[in-house]
Amino acid sequence: MDIQNRITQLFNIQYPIIQAGMVWVSGWKLASAVSNNGGLGLIGAGSMKTDLLKEHIIKCREATRNPFGVNIPLLRGDAEDLIKTCLDQNIKIFFTSAGNPVKFIKLLKDNNVIVVHVVPSVKHGLKAESVGCDAIVGEGVEAGGHNGPDEIATLCLIPQLVDAVNIPVIAAGGIADGRQIAAVFCLGAEAVQIGTLFAATEESSAHINYKNAVVNAKDDGTTLALKQIGLIRMIKNDFAKKALDGEKSGYNNDQLKELLGTKRERIGIYEGNIDDGALEAGQSSGLVNKIMTVREVFETLIIQYSQAREKIIR
Amino acid sequence: MDIQNRITQLFNIQYPIIQAGMVWVSGWKLASAVSNNGGLGLIGAGSMKTDLLKEHIIKCREATRNPFGVNIPLLRGDAEDLIKTCLDQNIKIFFTSAGNPVKFIKLLKDNNVIVVHVVPSVKHGLKAESVGCDAIVGEGVEAGGHNGPDEIATLCLIPQLVDAVNIPVIAAGGIADGRQIAAVFCLGAEAVQIGTLFAATEESSAHINYKNAVVNAKDDGTTLALKQIGLIRMIKNDFAKKALDGEKSGYNNDQLKELLGTKRERIGIYEGNIDDGALEAGQSSGLVNKIMTVREVFETLIIQYSQAREKIIR
Repeated sequence: MDIQNRITQLFNIQYPIIQAGMVWVSGWKLASAVSNNGGLGLIGAGSMKTDLLKEHIIKCREATRNPFGVNIPLLRGDAEDLIKTCLDQNIKIFFTSAGNPVKFIKLLKDNNVIVVHVVPSVKHGLKAESVGCDAIVGEGVEAGGHNGPDEIATLCLIPQLVDAVNIPVIAAGGIADGRQIAAVFCLGAEAVQIGTLFAATEESSAHINYKNAVVNAKDDGTTLALKQIGLIRMIKNDFAKKALDGEKSGYNNDQLKELLGTKRERIGIYEGNIDDGALEAGQSSGLVNKIMTVREVFETLIIQYSQAREKIIR
Repeated sequence: MDIQNRITQLFNIQYPIIQAGMVWVSGWKLASAVSNNGGLGLIGAGSMKTDLLKEHIIKCREATRNPFGVNIPLLRGDAEDLIKTCLDQNIKIFFTSAGNPVKFIKLLKDNNVIVVHVVPSVKHGLKAESVGCDAIVGEGVEAGGHNGPDEIATLCLIPQLVDAVNIPVIAAGGIADGRQIAAVFCLGAEAVQIGTLFAATEESSAHINYKNAVVNAKDDGTTLALKQIGLIRMIKNDFAKKALDGEKSGYNNDQLKELLGTKRERIGIYEGNIDDGALEAGQSSGLVNKIMTVREVFETLIIQYSQAREKIIR
């Protein structure tokens, strides 16, 4: 996988493979392992307060000399504090998601950092470009966790984003195999962002029960639930069934929010309660068949990519 | 696009491009145009009774000397009559969809014809292979019209099908651009089946209002509605909104079936009532930007494919 393009140059990385900054999964250990293997690791600030985030940034810098970044979910009430913590720690790469980048772009750009925003549609991609983002992640509905309301799949989203914007497009949503990396490069993407596969690695902070649930999930193992209050892709379990049943029987938003509560992600992903937790994971779960180290993931992706590329060259 | 593989050999076609056999859209005119341009045209029997189907087969044979086939939705009460009509007319290529192939496979195989079944998941793919189908179409949730309940996207479905079965896999769902053909070939598909793009061609029997609705739809222009009674992807319009509102307010299956009625597809696609009809179309609608002839479609797909292939070879 000898690729040099705008994304590898932007981040100064060897491989155009970026690890998603996920809640309860991607601390310094996972992010540094990804960066040490030639990709771009991201610390997921979504499940951290500022003190913990600072600690992870310091440890990550101790663990790798390669570039890494932080993912900030902009809907967090303390998003600005999280950003300032990162700036204090001299973070130069920001991935922003789940919210509007307009509010924070000046603070970020005044500090001369790279900003990449995650978008679920062409409209949001154009917006991110217009406010000055350096690149966008086009995230299809296959992705784990929170999704855009229009449920646009990666295969359709990426070529339309590539046609619409001039900044580079990173493909995300459903990707856990090197064949898919070759595929989205055909669509015009210049890198991939991978979540679920990294969430199930040795270096991920997720509970072993969560990792096993990802490994055991088949092609039909995830569902989209709670559309009315946000649309979350998760592994089918008791909680997912309750959420779907609630929607089917006409629950209003308050009832659904009460059902969801505030700790579903934590108890599922981090504490390993596979019945009552929200086991956020992508549709790519069916392609994740064992728990690997980050190094093994990179080796596997590169072989799969090369074989897929050979197939289409012939 | 100089590809020779199991699918081009199975059907004796020049390009691994198959036109979906769609209701109210794909009569002899569209099917013969696709076959004359080197792909595989399919007559869509789903909106025809036996007499009309016979007429279309005869006209199609007059219009092309190349192979073509028929798509039979197996849930039709008169599916066996439709199949027998085709066999009487010496049809050698059958695409079956929307139902269980077991019931009809003996009749078909006793007549020494090629049978391809459309599947939305690995489980259904394995079933189709085990009963003796010659190939499968893996159809992702991006596809227009009826979809599988697990909403598996093409990007995730195809590599898992390719890993699971030994018969060739044709990729469908969301494909309307040659970049996507290159992409699904990277995933291991050996052909594509394209619906919406052909539904919007000059040769399609669809109403001009329907074709314009496809052309005008953006990336977020379609929705999945009526999940409880079958899951149909259609262009967002008044009827789609009514269907989604009904689901949200807890309609039971009978209420939803009454809302759907029996002629929504016809009045939308064939009669051009863009408010009250079910404008079945894929998420690929956003990639369809003008009404072309079938010849122009092939020329465009081949150029796009070649450019995408060049990009990944470099």
